[in-house]
Amino acid sequence: MKLMDIYARLRGDISYIEKELERSIDTEHAVLNEASLHLLKAGGKRIRPVFVLLAGELGTYDLERLKRVAVPLELIHMASLVHDDVIDNANTRRGQLTVKSKWDNRVAMYTGDYIYAKALTIVTQLENPVIHRILSKAMLEMCIGEMEQIRDFFNTEQTVRNYLLRIRRKTALLIAISCQLGAVASEAKPELARRMYNFGYNVGMAFQIRDDILDLLGTEKQLGKPPGSDMRQGNITLPVLFALQESSIREELLHEISTIRDADGQADTYRVIQLIRGSKGVDRADAMAAKYIEKAIAALDILPDNKTRKNFKDIAHFIGKRLH
Amino acid sequence: MKLMDIYARLRGDISYIEKELERSIDTEHAVLNEASLHLLKAGGKRIRPVFVLLAGELGTYDLERLKRVAVPLELIHMASLVHDDVIDNANTRRGQLTVKSKWDNRVAMYTGDYIYAKALTIVTQLENPVIHRILSKAMLEMCIGEMEQIRDFFNTEQTVRNYLLRIRRKTALLIAISCQLGAVASEAKPELARRMYNFGYNVGMAFQIRDDILDLLGTEKQLGKPPGSDMRQGNITLPVLFALQESSIREELLHEISTIRDADGQADTYRVIQLIRGSKGVDRADAMAAKYIEKAIAALDILPDNKTRKNFKDIAHFIGKRLH
Repeated sequence: MKLMDIYARLRGDISYIEKELERSIDTEHAVLNEASLHLLKAGGKRIRPVFVLLAGELGTYDLERLKRVAVPLELIHMASLVHDDVIDNANTRRGQLTVKSKWDNRVAMYTGDYIYAKALTIVTQLENPVIHRILSKAMLEMCIGEMEQIRDFFNTEQTVRNYLLRIRRKTALLIAISCQLGAVASEAKPELARRMYNFGYNVGMAFQIRDDILDLLGTEKQLGKPPGSDMRQGNITLPVLFALQESSIREELLHEISTIRDADGQADTYRVIQLIRGSKGVDRADAMAAKYIEKAIAALDILPDNKTRKNFKDIAHFIGKRLH
Repeated sequence: MKLMDIYARLRGDISYIEKELERSIDTEHAVLNEASLHLLKAGGKRIRPVFVLLAGELGTYDLERLKRVAVPLELIHMASLVHDDVIDNANTRRGQLTVKSKWDNRVAMYTGDYIYAKALTIVTQLENPVIHRILSKAMLEMCIGEMEQIRDFFNTEQTVRNYLLRIRRKTALLIAISCQLGAVASEAKPELARRMYNFGYNVGMAFQIRDDILDLLGTEKQLGKPPGSDMRQGNITLPVLFALQESSIREELLHEISTIRDADGQADTYRVIQLIRGSKGVDRADAMAAKYIEKAIAALDILPDNKTRKNFKDIAHFIGKRLH
């Protein structure tokens, strides 16, 4: 099953959101416009808007209200990618040139700022200040997560807990509130909104762990960027942390990682990837992702047994299985 | 008269806001904390919080409510400075090392993002979504203003109108809404809030023009950064645009500016400053600033004749006179 098949039922509303996304970044300023559009056109799974729409089915479904949550959430995600690419010195993402590479760091920084601000002008059109609060809190946590990522670059002594806290802030929170805010905006029961948050949080954790595994296992074609990118920039992910726990390879792995650090982004990651692939690190990370998916699905148990719940479940399974 | 004498009456409340500012950026993340605090301690006139407090006297003065506007506005201003310094490649501001120079561009970018997000979490504690809307709209316009500044770097063909539109977005809007939101948060009459916006807008325009003049006339000690910084980074300001209209110096000025552009930030600006100082550019810019101050003061005419109005007037005069 493809993600698009799960989305099929929502196709009409998703394309409406897609059009609104395009409309939202329409500005008279040429470079901003071009840079934002370039980013938008690079695509993505639009998982956050989809979760908003699905969660919106738990209350009074109102597309006009839901779009004022769905569009900002996707914009915030996009803005964080633009700023990420400045930091990561990334030249491609999803097989496309990044904003910072097509233009420069200055343009990337202000394009990110602009998209963040645009997200806020849209969400604040809703009268409910609770929604504004949840969104700005999540933005704050995301920034802290990004700073933590920088702080932890090449830190081979960091704990698994450390990693989990970081991806919680960096990724899981925004997905969690996508589910939550869909429910809140449609005035679903508070207990449902809480469950949605839990579902999204657990899916988000699994999603990031899978993404980090994929960076080690995938090909450049699959990834839209060279494999081992995380390692090259110093981002020590879960499979690496697990591999470092194996005494038979620990020393060589540490040596390889310090070589990569000293090569300042120009390193060959072939050997390090080989070492990690040969370890139990990938399987153990994979198992942890599967546990998060289980928890996500468990959070759905109070939902009525209908299409909405089935779609949530299917998406969770899809994310849980995306390596096999 | 010093600005502090005008503030004297508000001293208690201003130091409360100052403490809240410090508390607001208190995070467990060490670098973020240090970088934000470094910025805060570098000082500034806190003109935005002061305007919020003063405008708060036009309705029901409630410091707890007003601080949720005053703190975010100052934070947004601070965040924009951090991002500005990345762009401007500035090493000092107000005589202190900038965040990007004390740490690096990555830290500066995320410190800015963090402070922006923090501002939003504070303002969204207020129940009134109108305030959230006004603030996010202003943030959006500021970003566009920053991008326009980049676009217009070294563009000697730009019009005065172009310059005015840019500083409107970059500077005047945030000062305008500081005055407006103080009135809105204290539930002053809508007509008073509108007048406050006008007052702040005109003061803000004068403020930026004066700042741009000062960059050409001031000493390094006065400015806390080398004079001619605007010119070195390509920011063509009002006195320069006026000087370019003088046919006797236009050619030499154009030549100097293009030399500076080609020197990529390392240029000697002695001659270009000398040319502008010798032109009517400074006086004409000065006169334009004075006009904005006049308009600002005219906007105060419906305010009751009391201390609040007198303080607003005194600050406007202070800004109007800060070169003499």
